Amino acid sequence: MNTVAYYNGALTDSKDVLISPYDLGLVRGYAVFDVMRTFNNKPFLREDHYKRLRNSAKEMGLNVPVSSAEYAAIVDNLLRLNGFREARIRTVLTGGPSPDAYSPTGKETFFILLEKIVPLPEHIYSAGAKMITVEYYRECPRIKSTNYVAAMQHHREKVRRGAIEILYTHRGMVLEGSVSNLFMASKGRLVTPKDDILTGITRNFLIRLSKKCRIPVAERPISLKELLKADEIFMTSSTKGIIPIVSVDGTRIGRGKVGPVTSTLMDEFRKYAATY
Amino acid sequence: MNTVAYYNGALTDSKDVLISPYDLGLVRGYAVFDVMRTFNNKPFLREDHYKRLRNSAKEMGLNVPVSSAEYAAIVDNLLRLNGFREARIRTVLTGGPSPDAYSPTGKETFFILLEKIVPLPEHIYSAGAKMITVEYYRECPRIKSTNYVAAMQHHREKVRRGAIEILYTHRGMVLEGSVSNLFMASKGRLVTPKDDILTGITRNFLIRLSKKCRIPVAERPISLKELLKADEIFMTSSTKGIIPIVSVDGTRIGRGKVGPVTSTLMDEFRKYAATY
Repeated sequence: MNTVAYYNGALTDSKDVLISPYDLGLVRGYAVFDVMRTFNNKPFLREDHYKRLRNSAKEMGLNVPVSSAEYAAIVDNLLRLNGFREARIRTVLTGGPSPDAYSPTGKETFFILLEKIVPLPEHIYSAGAKMITVEYYRECPRIKSTNYVAAMQHHREKVRRGAIEILYTHRGMVLEGSVSNLFMASKGRLVTPKDDILTGITRNFLIRLSKKCRIPVAERPISLKELLKADEIFMTSSTKGIIPIVSVDGTRIGRGKVGPVTSTLMDEFRKYAATY
Repeated sequence: MNTVAYYNGALTDSKDVLISPYDLGLVRGYAVFDVMRTFNNKPFLREDHYKRLRNSAKEMGLNVPVSSAEYAAIVDNLLRLNGFREARIRTVLTGGPSPDAYSPTGKETFFILLEKIVPLPEHIYSAGAKMITVEYYRECPRIKSTNYVAAMQHHREKVRRGAIEILYTHRGMVLEGSVSNLFMASKGRLVTPKDDILTGITRNFLIRLSKKCRIPVAERPISLKELLKADEIFMTSSTKGIIPIVSVDGTRIGRGKVGPVTSTLMDEFRKYAATY
């Protein structure tokens, strides 16, 4: 589907967002990105997303070519021009084309694409979903880079086992999902990892929301052993929200259905989003 | 410069090799590649390059869409049509475009681009070059993936320090260069790492060539400490050949000039290439 996009300083038809085969994002994996969504056609936590993109870029030696205010204006413009009810906003920044396919020239590639949000089937939220684990430690966990090779390599296995997400584990500890963060609840208290992961925007929001709901939250390491004994597990994602997890590697979690802490937070999040 | 390229099954102008912003090679780093060169307009060690590409693809869950014979015919065709004296042949295989920018569809992207070889300045070969080290362990060392983030992050430092290459070290051991393999010579004997690296095509050829020249070669781990005390160091690359290294992190290697073992191998390699 063609949409209006932003590409290197100008609005354009998305079909004209075409990338050079010498782009360092393609030939050297030199790229960072962000995905956010709208609620009521307003970008959700846009400033947080912009800041994270800028931080990731900085760590990589890349430069986001627009200010926060410019980014806000471009995104608002794209939302108006595309007129979706709700949109997913994908922002990509790469090292740009390089004549020798290796040396950065400082002429970076920057584009923003809008997509219609296609919600996941409702039963995933009402009945919960499955996760599988894969042993993997991301190279630069604090950078939202485009390196998803581990997730791609295990995609087929994930589908075959009917799972919605791959959970990365490292030396017995659970880290994060391939495109999500992880929370567990035990005895009414939430726990979520903090170190060696990308602390997602929705994860951070959930921590604030939980505190408002007087649900205690601890940010600390979680072993896989502890996780499998949790009362409840859920994952968070900027585009998918809160997804209850009822099985990890085939082990049933708690009673195998959406638990009370998860339900409460899903309700509160829905209410918050409805009036955003 | 426009050249004739091969893109997803057809010959085309290189300016029409344009990649979707939803290509998994771009948005998820899901890609492998190969670069080889010609001598006397013949692809050097083409079958070795094809096999490595196929192995890398397999490890990644990707599929090279042409057989070895088809690959040979396409490359010969491109060489004839472009008519360069000597060419660099870049082959890239990605997971292809994905509507959700995540799930592989099995419709991979495959292209071959030819470039004119621009030789490095002659003094690099006659006087030797510098290397700097960076602590880094590649995620999947045996796969020639497009993940060069560490090299990109340290590119400016490399240039600033007048170095030609970044040498990856891990826990005190030296591994490989960002785009090359490493050899050291001490008392007339060659040593090169074997484990935890991509064993390059030119590296493997050099081992065979050394044996033919009756220069003993050992494939074994090398510590940085040992490397810095070597009589000679050189790096190998499919496009750059043998490059003498006379300084690592500012430490002079041997007498700080191209040594006899390196010279012998450079001469023998030149002779071999001249009659290829």
